Amino acid sequence: MYRTHHCGELRLENVGNNITLSGWVQKARDLGGMTFLDLRDRYGITQVVFNMDDNAQLCGEARKLGREFVIQVQGVVRERSSKNANRVTGDIEIEATSLKILNAAKTPPFTIEENTDGGDDLRMKYRYLDLRRPLQQSNIIFRSKLALESRKYLDSQGFIEVETPFLIKSTPEGARDFVVPSRLNPGEFYALPQSPQTFKQILMVSGFDKYFQIVKCFRDEDLRADRQPEFTQIDCEMSFIHIEDILNTFEGLAKHLFKTMIGIELAEFPRMSYDDAMEKYGSDKPDLRFGMEFVEINDLAQGKGFGVFDQAELVVGICAKGIADSYSNKDMKDLTEWLQRPQIGAKGLVYVKYQADGIKSTVGKFYSDEELKSWGERFGVEEGDVLFILSGEKEKTRKQLNELRLELGRKLGLMKTGDFKPLWVVNFPLLEWDEDANRFFAMHHPFTSPKQEDIPRMLSGDHETMKSLRADAYDLVINGSEIGGGSIRIHDRELQSKNFDLLGFTKEEAEDQFGFLLGAFEYGAPPHGGIAFGFDRLCAVLNGQSSIRDFIAFPKNNTGRDMMIDAPSHIHDAQLKELNLDVTYKPEK
Amino acid sequence: MYRTHHCGELRLENVGNNITLSGWVQKARDLGGMTFLDLRDRYGITQVVFNMDDNAQLCGEARKLGREFVIQVQGVVRERSSKNANRVTGDIEIEATSLKILNAAKTPPFTIEENTDGGDDLRMKYRYLDLRRPLQQSNIIFRSKLALESRKYLDSQGFIEVETPFLIKSTPEGARDFVVPSRLNPGEFYALPQSPQTFKQILMVSGFDKYFQIVKCFRDEDLRADRQPEFTQIDCEMSFIHIEDILNTFEGLAKHLFKTMIGIELAEFPRMSYDDAMEKYGSDKPDLRFGMEFVEINDLAQGKGFGVFDQAELVVGICAKGIADSYSNKDMKDLTEWLQRPQIGAKGLVYVKYQADGIKSTVGKFYSDEELKSWGERFGVEEGDVLFILSGEKEKTRKQLNELRLELGRKLGLMKTGDFKPLWVVNFPLLEWDEDANRFFAMHHPFTSPKQEDIPRMLSGDHETMKSLRADAYDLVINGSEIGGGSIRIHDRELQSKNFDLLGFTKEEAEDQFGFLLGAFEYGAPPHGGIAFGFDRLCAVLNGQSSIRDFIAFPKNNTGRDMMIDAPSHIHDAQLKELNLDVTYKPEK
Repeated sequence: MYRTHHCGELRLENVGNNITLSGWVQKARDLGGMTFLDLRDRYGITQVVFNMDDNAQLCGEARKLGREFVIQVQGVVRERSSKNANRVTGDIEIEATSLKILNAAKTPPFTIEENTDGGDDLRMKYRYLDLRRPLQQSNIIFRSKLALESRKYLDSQGFIEVETPFLIKSTPEGARDFVVPSRLNPGEFYALPQSPQTFKQILMVSGFDKYFQIVKCFRDEDLRADRQPEFTQIDCEMSFIHIEDILNTFEGLAKHLFKTMIGIELAEFPRMSYDDAMEKYGSDKPDLRFGMEFVEINDLAQGKGFGVFDQAELVVGICAKGIADSYSNKDMKDLTEWLQRPQIGAKGLVYVKYQADGIKSTVGKFYSDEELKSWGERFGVEEGDVLFILSGEKEKTRKQLNELRLELGRKLGLMKTGDFKPLWVVNFPLLEWDEDANRFFAMHHPFTSPKQEDIPRMLSGDHETMKSLRADAYDLVINGSEIGGGSIRIHDRELQSKNFDLLGFTKEEAEDQFGFLLGAFEYGAPPHGGIAFGFDRLCAVLNGQSSIRDFIAFPKNNTGRDMMIDAPSHIHDAQLKELNLDVTYKPEK
Repeated sequence: MYRTHHCGELRLENVGNNITLSGWVQKARDLGGMTFLDLRDRYGITQVVFNMDDNAQLCGEARKLGREFVIQVQGVVRERSSKNANRVTGDIEIEATSLKILNAAKTPPFTIEENTDGGDDLRMKYRYLDLRRPLQQSNIIFRSKLALESRKYLDSQGFIEVETPFLIKSTPEGARDFVVPSRLNPGEFYALPQSPQTFKQILMVSGFDKYFQIVKCFRDEDLRADRQPEFTQIDCEMSFIHIEDILNTFEGLAKHLFKTMIGIELAEFPRMSYDDAMEKYGSDKPDLRFGMEFVEINDLAQGKGFGVFDQAELVVGICAKGIADSYSNKDMKDLTEWLQRPQIGAKGLVYVKYQADGIKSTVGKFYSDEELKSWGERFGVEEGDVLFILSGEKEKTRKQLNELRLELGRKLGLMKTGDFKPLWVVNFPLLEWDEDANRFFAMHHPFTSPKQEDIPRMLSGDHETMKSLRADAYDLVINGSEIGGGSIRIHDRELQSKNFDLLGFTKEEAEDQFGFLLGAFEYGAPPHGGIAFGFDRLCAVLNGQSSIRDFIAFPKNNTGRDMMIDAPSHIHDAQLKELNLDVTYKPEK
């Protein structure tokens, strides 16, 4: 037996016990007559003591141990004279009576402690060492528990987990597929699923009225920071439901997870239409941990001779509380420059400070104090507040002001960790018109149903009408992160065909790619809808973190490379030949 | 709200309730003044009655409903005059007060009932309809519950579920990989995992001492009946353990699953060495639901002038109880011909019948009754028994006798459904010598550890020695099906390199494919081992079924094709171009 206990287990009540521990040498301290080891495993750290006076040979062996050696120690638990209150095992130590090296270790390329000295690339390459760090371990363990809690809850609600296939069919609509050449069907390819969307709808047609799956999905996109080519979803679908049923069911799931995982009881989730979200926050995923709602002042600001505002489609601002005195001209200048960077692209920033000694503004020469006061009244300003105002084309200006609002939220410490503000955003547009591509794209996906009352307009309306269609689609947003999204689906062949049509599919393309689903709709498809949660993101949000990579055991880097195993890689010519493939890429010399 | 109850829920105590149901029309019977519908959903079937006298219009609408229409019915629960004891809702029926068609249905191409008239191909194409059949639904639901129970149990034992990546590196050893071209890394490929083997070992090196994952794996093999290119494993690994810890832990899992899923309490699992299994049953996965152990009679049968036996390496037989009178000469002839088919390839079959009127045998002229009696004594025959004896080269003969034993087991009804006989087969050979390829293959896989006592022989022995090495490998066999297998792993770089060496890897190949693992072994790898269960197979075995396909929601056919979605398929030239690939296959015209 390699161990009787683990390294986080022993307490004062074990004093006197003969025990065996196994683990890694975290640290060794040699204090002349005594050698102290910190022995680490997944569960904690226990101090082991070797005494020169008691057993010189054993102590000598202990002195030779390096960091990360794997050892087995037998000994007796005893009370420590100087206790370590920061460690659950800090009241005791092990007086070693025997020592066995289970495996030696080279000196690791970085320190395996809470704060490591290893850079990103090094830690990715030696991921197996990085994963020994307690923070990384607790992230991965958290993820495991989150998955289990999700499953238990959904099971308690009557959901069935069904595994859908990974080797499916390529559908060029949407993001790029990863494809898999088929050896048995020469010249043909499978695709890896971007989501189990069509399969879960098929399961509804099959009558499994409550489906879920925690499942890997794949997208061959150009990777940005914090995007992964493979990612995990909690994928769900229900039949015989209206939108209310979905929102209530999955609000229940989210509340359950917050409560069981981090002990937080969330109140009822507010709901906001997409239009309201855009108007009030310039974003379809507003962070509601702080206010600063947008206030429009076209009527107050236009026609007073300030050309910039007069020519703008929208004049809109936010109010930052109590910073008028602390925010210097330099701060304002920095903020303006930050907004003018190409990523955001604002032309300029107008501010109005309401201070004890009067109102100060960059547009003071165009507006009287009375006029600026009337602006302030609309924002509900108090002394010490500052208004930030942007203007221009409506959509762009809202996006810019959203960035400004978030930046101020960050700078002013308004995005508190431990504060969670969920929100359902509902009533998304069905279609987005892409000027450049001169075509519609599905705002959610091609299977999303228009709202019941919009169906007649969809079936008979003109081009402009299509832009105004609303969908039964919804996102769950927490603290500005979209953690889930879904929709009621079309379950009628005619309506689905119309939607494919609007999205630019020819009849043949629709039949070729989704014929099975269109067919299924003819054999008794129930009304249905669903949602998918980004599981990686959910892990991060529950931990108040922004990066998903820390919650993935073996993430890939920004070029989709697994640095540890060095994949992707070249394959043998024999493999290519069997697959009837030639690689046309010739690397430049 | 689409429904207040589901179709398996209403009972006598609901009589008088106003309810709403939604579901599929399973059957409609028109009895003149009354129309009866069987309304079906995942939970059951409820009878709905429309009465011409009460509401002629409603009844008229009901008469127009076809099979598999999706409808919503409102009505009142009432007691049935003629109850149906075979149905949980058989005491009641719904007196309909309103009817709404949620979706019409074309007539399905086969009947959606317990016994369908649809052929395999048709049911695969319309999988969404086949999955409506109650048996298929219960299989899929069983699978879901089995996965959850597995997870709950492993969680209760301290196991962490960790998701390992699907886009990994191709390792040509073993079965063929499915590969995935990387667009961002031109000319390079990912591979889909045949198992998470190296990643779970890496997790052990990282200190996650108890890992599991229910995970899809992929093998591009030539498909045989009941093989799928994608399949599911319960994949497990533990650190700081010996073989006993693994066997006990996963015997616990298996017992738990049998108890919770099908209410069967299994006794302690017997263990048998690979050598014993081969000697006594001619198979490393013996079905222990019945006896018929092999008995060797070289010493009794040779040297009596029967050339076939005299020249044989092995003379071995089994005893079938009590069939001497019922098994005719015709039966014997059929059995002999069955054994002589090329799939089995026996030269002939010798039998000895012990009957009340004497001993009869095909080799009676070579052996005296006394001699045949002494054979019988070794087998422990009683009157009415028959010995079946084969001879020839040892390994081949055992395989043939295994086939005969299983065939007799089937024919004599000895493989009882509901009877479960688990067995641990242990001490497998480490390496298999392949005469044709003139090389060793790993019997389990290249990471399997030789038994501790065999390590010195492995590191220094000659070629012949390697053939005799035993591994710390084990299979869990139930009723002749291997449902799991695993091993203690090598955790030492030198030993792993030696094993790669024996398996014909050059140093460069080993480094290229498994360098990360060899590297990991140098930084403090703990002793570890694990097991993987075939989850599809486990589903089937627990249900006393032999086909895994019925437990997979969307299986592929024997050419790896998903008949429903018609995948794999051709992809666009633009996709190929982005991936830097040419398809070289030109179909014959």
